Amino acid sequence: MPRFRLTIEYDGTGFVGWQRQANGLSIQESIEAAILAFCGETVTVRGAGRTDAGVHALGQVAHIDLARDWRADTVRDALNAMLRPAPISIVAAEPVGPAFDARFSARARHYLYRVVDRRAPPALDRDRVWHVRRPLDAAAMAEAAGLLLGHHDFTTFRSTECQAKSPIRSIDAFTVTRAGDEIRFAVSARSFLHNQVRSMVGSLKLVGEGRWRPADVAAALAARDRRACGPVAPPTGLHLVAVDYPASGFGR
Amino acid sequence: MPRFRLTIEYDGTGFVGWQRQANGLSIQESIEAAILAFCGETVTVRGAGRTDAGVHALGQVAHIDLARDWRADTVRDALNAMLRPAPISIVAAEPVGPAFDARFSARARHYLYRVVDRRAPPALDRDRVWHVRRPLDAAAMAEAAGLLLGHHDFTTFRSTECQAKSPIRSIDAFTVTRAGDEIRFAVSARSFLHNQVRSMVGSLKLVGEGRWRPADVAAALAARDRRACGPVAPPTGLHLVAVDYPASGFGR
Repeated sequence: MPRFRLTIEYDGTGFVGWQRQANGLSIQESIEAAILAFCGETVTVRGAGRTDAGVHALGQVAHIDLARDWRADTVRDALNAMLRPAPISIVAAEPVGPAFDARFSARARHYLYRVVDRRAPPALDRDRVWHVRRPLDAAAMAEAAGLLLGHHDFTTFRSTECQAKSPIRSIDAFTVTRAGDEIRFAVSARSFLHNQVRSMVGSLKLVGEGRWRPADVAAALAARDRRACGPVAPPTGLHLVAVDYPASGFGR
Repeated sequence: MPRFRLTIEYDGTGFVGWQRQANGLSIQESIEAAILAFCGETVTVRGAGRTDAGVHALGQVAHIDLARDWRADTVRDALNAMLRPAPISIVAAEPVGPAFDARFSARARHYLYRVVDRRAPPALDRDRVWHVRRPLDAAAMAEAAGLLLGHHDFTTFRSTECQAKSPIRSIDAFTVTRAGDEIRFAVSARSFLHNQVRSMVGSLKLVGEGRWRPADVAAALAARDRRACGPVAPPTGLHLVAVDYPASGFGR
């Protein structure tokens, strides 16, 4: 069956998350319903990242198999028409070969976590940022983020509900930068554990407040104990920005 | 009476605009209601720019006179508490002297107009941008925008309902830049006519589509005729970014 790769943008506010769940509407289910409306097929949309409730995506990637070899642009436009008015957009659809798997072929996942650091609440970006009223030291957080780079056992920074077999992951990039009132955490890895980004950002915030030193983040990592983690950052600030795949080998 | 300068951020979606109107809730009225709830006073909030329904602000400026000389931070925090959950935020409150007038003391107003230029609809920024499906030539629009710089009769680019006595205005800066799928129009003037930014952006879009040459924008300006204007751009993409005042003379 012809396989298509979808690049998806969504506002996660009001959804139960990427993955289909009994307790509310998911992004996955919304796209599956749009496919059913478009071509009458009941398919499973397989995504690269299972974003939590309230988490956003600029470039989630998924794949679907359809019975007919539609023009990819037709798939994109028809799904967008069917998705309306949900805040979910198929930014691109491309034909790929059967070896492409959105989840397992991914080489890197890039997340952005946005904080607005000021007394006044955000009005325009309310559901897109974590509002922190205390002044945060971005340089100290950047130093601490650097201590999380590389190959580690991230037991401290994963949800107790995480189903991954191994707590070992490799953080390939982790920057913290300030632009005015906004602080941006950009983190990349081949894959992440459940709640890993929000757990790391929540702990870095303690450094930003001066309650932890950067070395306390390294100690929390070394503890390999969930109880050593700071309070988990809320989902609103988190964005799945992009997923990378090998440059070739998946065309058809 | 002690006067305060307020810097205000808001999401204009769902409001009838800045100015109090009979047909729905305005930003001005919302802030006046918050002031009444905070200190029991019925005051008029005087703003620098009368943004239309659906237009946003990152840095609208207004002034208010209160009976008591509150700490400015108390005014900011109390109004934000009373404004909840409206998407209006008092970013700053500062004491100013009686000579300060948010509207008449302003030296420059800076607007940003955001376009998302791609086939797929925007999901995260849906109410913040103008979605244009055709590819636009940003360089041609930038060239045409340059022809609007300076001191001109902008009759072509103002609403027939504009109440300003003179159609003469001076555009001090007008840039058009592309970053990926987004095109940003940044325009500055001491003051603008009603619908002037949206009228200019709507006409520049015709240049971006190749339907007008840049010289057609100059011809439309020279016509001094509202019928020479292109279709007015929708309010969703427009943001009042900042208002400038003389550096000193208003303190107290």
